Amino acid sequence: MTDTPIGPVDGTKVPRYAGAATFARLPRIDEVGRFDVALIGAPFDGGVSFRPGARFGPSAIRQASRHLRPAYNPAQDVAPYAVIQAVDAGDVPCNPFDIDAALQQVDDGLAELLGSGGRPLMLGGDHTIALGGLRAVTRAHGPVALIHFDAHLDTWNSYFGADRTHGTIFRRAHEEGLLIRDASTHVGIRGPLYSAEDLVDDARFGFEIIRTDDVDRLGVEEVADRIRRRAGDNPVYLSIDIDVLDPAFAPGTGTPEMAGLTSRELLGLVRALPRDQIVAADLVEVSPPYDHAEITSLAAATLGYEICCLMARPETSTS
Amino acid sequence: MTDTPIGPVDGTKVPRYAGAATFARLPRIDEVGRFDVALIGAPFDGGVSFRPGARFGPSAIRQASRHLRPAYNPAQDVAPYAVIQAVDAGDVPCNPFDIDAALQQVDDGLAELLGSGGRPLMLGGDHTIALGGLRAVTRAHGPVALIHFDAHLDTWNSYFGADRTHGTIFRRAHEEGLLIRDASTHVGIRGPLYSAEDLVDDARFGFEIIRTDDVDRLGVEEVADRIRRRAGDNPVYLSIDIDVLDPAFAPGTGTPEMAGLTSRELLGLVRALPRDQIVAADLVEVSPPYDHAEITSLAAATLGYEICCLMARPETSTS
Amino acid sequence: MTDTPIGPVDGTKVPRYAGAATFARLPRIDEVGRFDVALIGAPFDGGVSFRPGARFGPSAIRQASRHLRPAYNPAQDVAPYAVIQAVDAGDVPCNPFDIDAALQQVDDGLAELLGSGGRPLMLGGDHTIALGGLRAVTRAHGPVALIHFDAHLDTWNSYFGADRTHGTIFRRAHEEGLLIRDASTHVGIRGPLYSAEDLVDDARFGFEIIRTDDVDRLGVEEVADRIRRRAGDNPVYLSIDIDVLDPAFAPGTGTPEMAGLTSRELLGLVRALPRDQIVAADLVEVSPPYDHAEITSLAAATLGYEICCLMARPETSTS
Amino acid sequence: MTDTPIGPVDGTKVPRYAGAATFARLPRIDEVGRFDVALIGAPFDGGVSFRPGARFGPSAIRQASRHLRPAYNPAQDVAPYAVIQAVDAGDVPCNPFDIDAALQQVDDGLAELLGSGGRPLMLGGDHTIALGGLRAVTRAHGPVALIHFDAHLDTWNSYFGADRTHGTIFRRAHEEGLLIRDASTHVGIRGPLYSAEDLVDDARFGFEIIRTDDVDRLGVEEVADRIRRRAGDNPVYLSIDIDVLDPAFAPGTGTPEMAGLTSRELLGLVRALPRDQIVAADLVEVSPPYDHAEITSLAAATLGYEICCLMARPETSTS
Amino acid sequence: MTDTPIGPVDGTKVPRYAGAATFARLPRIDEVGRFDVALIGAPFDGGVSFRPGARFGPSAIRQASRHLRPAYNPAQDVAPYAVIQAVDAGDVPCNPFDIDAALQQVDDGLAELLGSGGRPLMLGGDHTIALGGLRAVTRAHGPVALIHFDAHLDTWNSYFGADRTHGTIFRRAHEEGLLIRDASTHVGIRGPLYSAEDLVDDARFGFEIIRTDDVDRLGVEEVADRIRRRAGDNPVYLSIDIDVLDPAFAPGTGTPEMAGLTSRELLGLVRALPRDQIVAADLVEVSPPYDHAEITSLAAATLGYEICCLMARPETSTS
Amino acid sequence: MTDTPIGPVDGTKVPRYAGAATFARLPRIDEVGRFDVALIGAPFDGGVSFRPGARFGPSAIRQASRHLRPAYNPAQDVAPYAVIQAVDAGDVPCNPFDIDAALQQVDDGLAELLGSGGRPLMLGGDHTIALGGLRAVTRAHGPVALIHFDAHLDTWNSYFGADRTHGTIFRRAHEEGLLIRDASTHVGIRGPLYSAEDLVDDARFGFEIIRTDDVDRLGVEEVADRIRRRAGDNPVYLSIDIDVLDPAFAPGTGTPEMAGLTSRELLGLVRALPRDQIVAADLVEVSPPYDHAEITSLAAATLGYEICCLMARPETSTS
Repeated sequence: MTDTPIGPVDGTKVPRYAGAATFARLPRIDEVGRFDVALIGAPFDGGVSFRPGARFGPSAIRQASRHLRPAYNPAQDVAPYAVIQAVDAGDVPCNPFDIDAALQQVDDGLAELLGSGGRPLMLGGDHTIALGGLRAVTRAHGPVALIHFDAHLDTWNSYFGADRTHGTIFRRAHEEGLLIRDASTHVGIRGPLYSAEDLVDDARFGFEIIRTDDVDRLGVEEVADRIRRRAGDNPVYLSIDIDVLDPAFAPGTGTPEMAGLTSRELLGLVRALPRDQIVAADLVEVSPPYDHAEITSLAAATLGYEICCLMARPETSTS
Repeated sequence: MTDTPIGPVDGTKVPRYAGAATFARLPRIDEVGRFDVALIGAPFDGGVSFRPGARFGPSAIRQASRHLRPAYNPAQDVAPYAVIQAVDAGDVPCNPFDIDAALQQVDDGLAELLGSGGRPLMLGGDHTIALGGLRAVTRAHGPVALIHFDAHLDTWNSYFGADRTHGTIFRRAHEEGLLIRDASTHVGIRGPLYSAEDLVDDARFGFEIIRTDDVDRLGVEEVADRIRRRAGDNPVYLSIDIDVLDPAFAPGTGTPEMAGLTSRELLGLVRALPRDQIVAADLVEVSPPYDHAEITSLAAATLGYEICCLMARPETSTS
Repeated sequence: MTDTPIGPVDGTKVPRYAGAATFARLPRIDEVGRFDVALIGAPFDGGVSFRPGARFGPSAIRQASRHLRPAYNPAQDVAPYAVIQAVDAGDVPCNPFDIDAALQQVDDGLAELLGSGGRPLMLGGDHTIALGGLRAVTRAHGPVALIHFDAHLDTWNSYFGADRTHGTIFRRAHEEGLLIRDASTHVGIRGPLYSAEDLVDDARFGFEIIRTDDVDRLGVEEVADRIRRRAGDNPVYLSIDIDVLDPAFAPGTGTPEMAGLTSRELLGLVRALPRDQIVAADLVEVSPPYDHAEITSLAAATLGYEICCLMARPETSTS
Repeated sequence: MTDTPIGPVDGTKVPRYAGAATFARLPRIDEVGRFDVALIGAPFDGGVSFRPGARFGPSAIRQASRHLRPAYNPAQDVAPYAVIQAVDAGDVPCNPFDIDAALQQVDDGLAELLGSGGRPLMLGGDHTIALGGLRAVTRAHGPVALIHFDAHLDTWNSYFGADRTHGTIFRRAHEEGLLIRDASTHVGIRGPLYSAEDLVDDARFGFEIIRTDDVDRLGVEEVADRIRRRAGDNPVYLSIDIDVLDPAFAPGTGTPEMAGLTSRELLGLVRALPRDQIVAADLVEVSPPYDHAEITSLAAATLGYEICCLMARPETSTS
Repeated sequence: MTDTPIGPVDGTKVPRYAGAATFARLPRIDEVGRFDVALIGAPFDGGVSFRPGARFGPSAIRQASRHLRPAYNPAQDVAPYAVIQAVDAGDVPCNPFDIDAALQQVDDGLAELLGSGGRPLMLGGDHTIALGGLRAVTRAHGPVALIHFDAHLDTWNSYFGADRTHGTIFRRAHEEGLLIRDASTHVGIRGPLYSAEDLVDDARFGFEIIRTDDVDRLGVEEVADRIRRRAGDNPVYLSIDIDVLDPAFAPGTGTPEMAGLTSRELLGLVRALPRDQIVAADLVEVSPPYDHAEITSLAAATLGYEICCLMARPETSTS
Repeated sequence: MTDTPIGPVDGTKVPRYAGAATFARLPRIDEVGRFDVALIGAPFDGGVSFRPGARFGPSAIRQASRHLRPAYNPAQDVAPYAVIQAVDAGDVPCNPFDIDAALQQVDDGLAELLGSGGRPLMLGGDHTIALGGLRAVTRAHGPVALIHFDAHLDTWNSYFGADRTHGTIFRRAHEEGLLIRDASTHVGIRGPLYSAEDLVDDARFGFEIIRTDDVDRLGVEEVADRIRRRAGDNPVYLSIDIDVLDPAFAPGTGTPEMAGLTSRELLGLVRALPRDQIVAADLVEVSPPYDHAEITSLAAATLGYEICCLMARPETSTS
């Protein structure tokens, strides 16, 4: 890469609460000639089974990203926006009344970004949008290993006759051949299920489950190893449902589940993910009406930033 | 009516915050042999264009109805639950992912209540459900005069290709022949529109608009007269969108609009409505995630109670 | 009065959010030799029938009183704290588990203040404490005319076998001979009742009711006239339940009632009260857990200030 | 047990935010012939020394229990409501003004449930109600081992002359002979005390204290072992004060104490409790006015569900 | 004007909660060749004497402006964005630590807009910024008539040695010769003062005061007449402190004052202002940390929109 | 010390929510002849770069300190207020508009306390005030070892031309020679930086950084050892920015940072600090407008209490 990337607005010149409303005050996609990573919003919550509100997720995450002082991340030893050109690509105008239309809009939006050779980082919206993302990504890269942080499996079959909702998308992804068998992992799973068969089905689809209790028992490093070993050298789609965090750390979400990960555990796991393999990512299920003092949207914004850092680090670094 | 109605749980025996979670702690529909008025929830918000959350409206209104000391209403000089048998008929299990399916469920649910000869009072839910209500009601009673309290006309044509949403239902009702021409009134209208044509269309559908400014100018009594004169002797469907109130009085709603009615104006208007003509009513657009200290759901619960009182008063009373 | 009163901390020298935590940053009672008016807290909510929390009322009202710039009140044309010595007398340590013990503590606390010749202004706490106040006041001054702002009559008989609660105190006051017959007024009454007999009883006890609807019809000036005429030349006990305001203006209260007074109406009425006759007053039912942005406690603090102004104005002034 | 239990309303047929307002949408007690476990509310907060509001605990916990997908709990490997008949027994109508009357009502309510052979799970309400529960339980089962999760000992002697409050009930229980000596444990204790003697007294009453620091040092498994060893084969009364959790995990409580358990620690400990020995349980001190986004009431609802699971597991299972 | 203005993003194509984060989703200033009206943020709260937070005002008002359906405003009979080119000019990067530096930045920012011939509409920030605005405006247009909506006079002299704060700016403006004598009006004034001299000073500076009580007495139309008569044919600077509204309508502000205007009164007054004379305007003192459900920022956004409508109406229209 | 200290108001006689508004209801400084430790508020937030509000910190921490039952702290085995005379010295009247003036006021306020031989414990306010504190302390005691709990280094150089802000004070302290080289430690550091040079600078100033990740790796005891070893026998200034806690534990702060310490870790570290060496301390950056249910201010109040306990323990105790 020869050109110096255009970075965020300088927080020592323009107060962080002022100026551009883009993610981390990065340039808009139309302000740069090319990009490596594109943040894109998918304001949709038509697929939720409990508390809605995630349609306001993208704007809340962008607002919370004003908190970031993004120039240098010592934890990953990288100055991401000096290395990669990251941009804010705006929002996919998801149809609020038609799940399939919205999925197609997400698919189209990501396909356009992928066509430019960049990596999309999608800000939800509810988890339904991940199916649109996976479809676009696999057309560009072939089937992927899914690394999925969530309290819930999201491999149920259907709700009320709807096949594509925030709880069923990874069963659909499996059925559509979007996932590489035996390379995918759910992390942070907990809570009761609709049926004991849910686990049987999930295993049949080729997932491994790492429960919150397993994180207790194994520790963050061992869990990260398992995730990496399972993903192997495959292209990775990273999907983080913010409800993987305990409700204390992320109250602003639609289907909170007691006894989740702490923010330190989640950040430790994310920083240890395979890096160059990540071809796309999403951060979903931030529901601002249920947030307090921006703690949930700040967690999501920080995760978005850390994923950018992952993407900016050379694969051989070992920080 | 010969039997003494079964009234609410006695608040001097069981604290109001304890006991039955039904509306006003009235009996459930399965606890009585017959009923005059049935409260029924329609927890649906799949038709909203802005802030969702109205799916939690019915449970929040019921919880707020615990505030009521319902035995005697001096403003209407009636002890409603000693005169009519009111019941809580539970919730219509609206499909969250399919607007038309949900409308059919609402239609079926109200048809069943109407078949028993009682009058339904539906707790929303977003305004979309009113179309289901109107369909059931007109099958039972023929076309109706609509008395519609709202900040918005709800006679737009479609959003994002969806024809039945919370902003389009009364255009649909007109097209489906559910409304008596020139008998219907919108009250409390204010705020900007998508187009000046919106007013032309609305008039063409046979509505009269009483804007909030008109309430200022004419006063509550004259406005009530106009509504009554326009409704004539026709059967009336009463639809109250809680956003007819100013956001100060009803912050917990999806599309708040500055400069609305005060709670005293609204209550004054509701108490002056034609009475025996009301064949059904709805109270919609309470969105609990945006409420504070239950003030919005308390307003809705009080309105629900006052409508019961209207239905319980003999037509000749003049309080 | 010869000595210059010690006034509040100067807000142009010490920021209003700093310094003394007394009401309006007035001196503590132990800092002055004598006083005309004493603010005293009664942090008690053991008498409430619905939402508790008023035990935190006194500290919240004091905190909100920091908002006041109290030197000169143009609406009453008086610089109150230059005319009268007002003090903060701290809190009565009300027993949270024994209503009668708490009433005795309130009675003792006010008696001590009255014994010094000053006028108490009590910050509740729930309305139960008014009975303790009335007992102390009538021992000092004989029976009084009650001017009572409230959504509710508070002349019910008993709840769950308890005779002295926030809803029954004025029946008890009548029975105990604390009130002058036909001199007392309830203002702002609205909402349903436990029974139509409630009105009969209330009239029998010698009260007049001015409903919120009457305020609409008569206007603030006429209502104020009626209150004054009815009080005549008698000593007056002023009792303001903050729920006389509409929930939009006072969400932070225990038994909110839709369709109440506006803050301008209430302030207009309070400013027009008879002045030198007020021998004591209370401000009750502020429940901070249900407040937002201090609007309820600010209303109460402002009312407390305006009552001080009333007490500081010479009777012949006519502002 | 021969009949198939009636389980909760199916969340794939009726949205979880709709339908029955019972705990976990289980059947009401009057809908089934017999039951194994009965949830019962005790909406009382007349015994609190600081922030009230727990009277709204039962309705908030029931509302939060809508979040549960209760069919199968992989953590305990049990489908509880297919094994045991659980029911919602409604609320005890606790007298808000008379602690002893309320305790008698709780005692009567639980005695009735125990008389049917079922196990009560009481939803508070403040901790005072546990004394009523213990009295009923020991009449049925004899003295019990108490397993008590709490930030506070609750073995103080009296407040303001009141002997039965939320901070004194376990001293009373000891004095009344309701507890088996040297079988009971407090878990999660922390924070300052009124006096160093408090610890001496507590030991004298036969309790062992496991402080939050001990959980740090020993780990969840060892703590669970100690609790079980100490309880031995005795019948167990389980009492969980939600303030055992850190305020981050349970802000909605009356006497929060910094540095508490995490939700994972608490859930781990609860799942490791002795099972068939639990003859009754309570979940207390959820104060909804101080909660945010239902995180406290969701924690309580989840704990209620997990206790049902404990009660449904065969004693020989070892999950 | 020959070119068709570029209007807001179409809310029937892109959901209002998606897409551009500009005011009313209008184009950015760099997207159009010329403009008539420019919205510009001044995120500054370094001049407040009580509750801070107004630095987040511009982003909150922009977010709330998503609520608007701005195509046609029937109350003013104008389709503003089809008539004038309105743009969002972003934020002035106000120095948070140096009031005079921030004032200079505001002055420079507005001067640049005025230099293009457009009219600035500034979104605060605290009221201090109005002084920067007035300086820029009077350099372009000469001294102005100030139409000032506020609970407070803002003509105090200094706080803590600071001469330019949110309570002193209009005294400074007078001293600097920015205001036309006897053409300016304060509207909505209420509450106590630091001294009776405050009124004498204010009159000496050439202001007329219309108190909230005057609005009660005179009515909206007469008040509007007085404002207009006083402004005469002079160029007008319009300054709206959101605390002119009652705290019920605008809790999210720094120095709330009981008993303010209703939103209908304020909107009525604003719509009746002289139109072409308005050379610049500001909307200040929205403090989002104290807002609830966006009601304060929605009021500000609506006022911003209505001011655009004023500016778009031909002077001869009389709606 | 010969006299028995005057302790807090007795919580079994006066309810904790009643009575004195001093920290922990301790005596005011004017009520005692001498003191060992003085709590003093510094209500200032003019130095913040993001969310303001810390000016309300002192009053919120005092209000939250009502939760404490402070007689005996078993974790430190001390009855602090029986051993040392602790007092509340009120607030420094910090100038809100002039950082240097405010710093001088803090310096003067602390100098006066130090002159009496007592140890000040300052309640912020934003972190800027620590510079005033350090200046006063080093005049009395010479340069100090700084033990600094914070998410951020606070050794940046300047913002917007301001050299003394909440992010630059420890660089200034270093430059002014207030700190002993190589004796100071930052604990709890995390999050991104403005530049990689920030770390180089910080090391050059003689600080050691213990990151949150290090706490994970080393454990609380080892971290405490490092802090103590580094401080050696030097006098210690303890500075705790509440944002060292994770936002879940302390949402009410101005610059929250994901993935912080838990409250148990922080309390464990504070209890293990060197004791007699602490010559002064501050607790800063509590911003009440962003708090919920007092959890942040309660954490700060508890820390204030634990620091008093540290100061009360004899150095040889080993609890």
